[in-house]
Amino acid sequence: MFEFTIQARDGRARVAQFHTPRGTVTTPMFMPVGTQGTVKGISPQELLEIGSQMILGNTYHLMLRPGEALVAAHGGLPGFTAYPGPFLTDSGGFQVMSLGHLRKITEEGVTFKSHLDGSAVALTPERSIAVQEALGADIIMAFDECPPYPAEREYIQRSLERTERWLARCVQAKTRPEQALFAIVQGGVHHDLRQQSLELTLPHDTPGFALGGLAVGEPKEEMYPAVAYTAERLPDHKPRYLMGVGHPEDLVAGIALGVDMFDCVYPTRTGRFGYALTDDGRLNLNASAPRRQLTPLDDECDCYACRHYTRAYLAHLVKAEEMLGPRMLSLHNLRYLHRLVERARGAIQTGTFIAWAQTWSERYFKGAVPVWFQEALRQSGTGFHQTTRDEKK
Amino acid sequence: MFEFTIQARDGRARVAQFHTPRGTVTTPMFMPVGTQGTVKGISPQELLEIGSQMILGNTYHLMLRPGEALVAAHGGLPGFTAYPGPFLTDSGGFQVMSLGHLRKITEEGVTFKSHLDGSAVALTPERSIAVQEALGADIIMAFDECPPYPAEREYIQRSLERTERWLARCVQAKTRPEQALFAIVQGGVHHDLRQQSLELTLPHDTPGFALGGLAVGEPKEEMYPAVAYTAERLPDHKPRYLMGVGHPEDLVAGIALGVDMFDCVYPTRTGRFGYALTDDGRLNLNASAPRRQLTPLDDECDCYACRHYTRAYLAHLVKAEEMLGPRMLSLHNLRYLHRLVERARGAIQTGTFIAWAQTWSERYFKGAVPVWFQEALRQSGTGFHQTTRDEKK
Repeated sequence: MFEFTIQARDGRARVAQFHTPRGTVTTPMFMPVGTQGTVKGISPQELLEIGSQMILGNTYHLMLRPGEALVAAHGGLPGFTAYPGPFLTDSGGFQVMSLGHLRKITEEGVTFKSHLDGSAVALTPERSIAVQEALGADIIMAFDECPPYPAEREYIQRSLERTERWLARCVQAKTRPEQALFAIVQGGVHHDLRQQSLELTLPHDTPGFALGGLAVGEPKEEMYPAVAYTAERLPDHKPRYLMGVGHPEDLVAGIALGVDMFDCVYPTRTGRFGYALTDDGRLNLNASAPRRQLTPLDDECDCYACRHYTRAYLAHLVKAEEMLGPRMLSLHNLRYLHRLVERARGAIQTGTFIAWAQTWSERYFKGAVPVWFQEALRQSGTGFHQTTRDEKK
Repeated sequence: MFEFTIQARDGRARVAQFHTPRGTVTTPMFMPVGTQGTVKGISPQELLEIGSQMILGNTYHLMLRPGEALVAAHGGLPGFTAYPGPFLTDSGGFQVMSLGHLRKITEEGVTFKSHLDGSAVALTPERSIAVQEALGADIIMAFDECPPYPAEREYIQRSLERTERWLARCVQAKTRPEQALFAIVQGGVHHDLRQQSLELTLPHDTPGFALGGLAVGEPKEEMYPAVAYTAERLPDHKPRYLMGVGHPEDLVAGIALGVDMFDCVYPTRTGRFGYALTDDGRLNLNASAPRRQLTPLDDECDCYACRHYTRAYLAHLVKAEEMLGPRMLSLHNLRYLHRLVERARGAIQTGTFIAWAQTWSERYFKGAVPVWFQEALRQSGTGFHQTTRDEKK
């Protein structure tokens, strides 16, 4: 259980299988976000059809509404949401910071007022684990603090030290062996602080590690060096999860740097706003041109929307504010990201990842590939060597 | 083509097959409403799965946005919407009256300002037919005036006479033989005016007839006698369509009186408001009790929502304003109405329709079956006899 079996490598990028109680997933993978117990607008059957492997649930939202006890009464998130595969829950830490009002952070944990009804709530490492055990995901996350960007260097340091003490309390509080607890490495964009966080975190030897505190507003030119620095210092034989990321270009760059797992609300959120992800960049269905185009959103896509609808029809739905519009765009965008990681996996397996990623990026960025992206690809083939392990064991 | 083959009778109720270019439908049937080229929130695949047979499109909405030319460029509504089965379009008349601003009715037609952008638009019998030919439905409706309730008797009379002149112009304007034009009988709740409208309308011998001008605010005690009076005077061997109806009880009462076709936005609209249709009446998922119920919406339903979700989960989606909530409630409500007509057909075929309808109504109305409903059932077994025809020919 929770074994991570690497099947192919290309530079730092790798394809692996991760075994969870509710099934084996193949990485790199993108996880759709089901904040409130539903991936917005999409049914579990559709998630399975488009190749979703693991769904993320948000502890903060679910503990406030409907409450973890009701989810537990359904046998956890699979029974509650009817998605039969693996789940991951976050710890609630990030959203307490971004959504809770009047939050106060102490060594004990965080107290805040609910964004729903203003009631006072406390979230501690122990409470986060208890809620996540009730929610019953296959992977649960350590309760951490994710400092904003920018933040004082000293604050980030104090925070990452506390995050490690919280991690120790999470490990202590955890009671369900069928759940994998992932630790989270912090340290902002400062490599020395990342190193300190790694030194504090790695000894806990959790079944997976997350790169936290990134994609919170910092420029990509600072984010990706921190991803590269952290990812190559995480154990080779355990999954690496870049939290809250991302856009298509983030997935390709992250995979290049050895990241295995991603999640983001972006595909569904941008879909609700009328945008479709394609290899040519983001298509805006609010614009006038698509209203007359009788072609699919994306010629190469096999999703229900691309197999059945024209851009003109989908643009009509967006204009008319019809529910089927955001539903179909969300479905397409999720499928686009799933296909993107599938294509990346195929390229890794054939040893053509960098070439594939370069070709993809030339088209996606319309010839103007940003330096940070080029640098991520360049670093994919370099860096210090991981301990060699018997990867088939 | 457009043959209506009666397969079973029970009192005035009947089961029949109606042959259209895009397939044969079995009546009585309920038609989901796809106002703007989509049944709100529901995919064509789902419509097929829940037993939808024919979808209604609204001429008024579609001519204003996206415009009938774009729909025609997709090969009509099936190509535009990806629903591969039969369609019916209304004439636009009803919605000009209810949605158009500053509308002016003359012998020529109706001029109005679009509810979308205030632009001046004219709709005439000829234009309605031209738009409906571009939309390409299997059944198209004559352009009529539907007077409000209450309306002056004299106005209703002048209006029904003009509606017949408009019908003659529709018949004249029609060019596509693969579309069946249905005439609409008006006359409000006045039986003598209904008789006059019948006398004017029947000679046009269209492949089907609609009961118009009902369900516009009049009490059920006035509506159903008008339905009974009109339905029994329409040709036995042609489909009868009660427009804009209805609620579950309306379907059962209408079927009892010999109605074959129904349409209404009710199941999707009430679903978006958090209500589920069941044999026990309408379940309000905004209330507190369902939030703790781990049972399906409806034990006897086979829809996706009832097979996968608890009331507690669906109530959570409603409370959290998650798109999947209205989607699943709309799906269930449509399936409920499709199952209701399927059960009615089964009862007609076994000669047990009245007994079934009584049992259904006792439970649905919780013992307080309204007089108008009882009277509709009573009338089902009476009334003057239709011309006997060879029903298998």
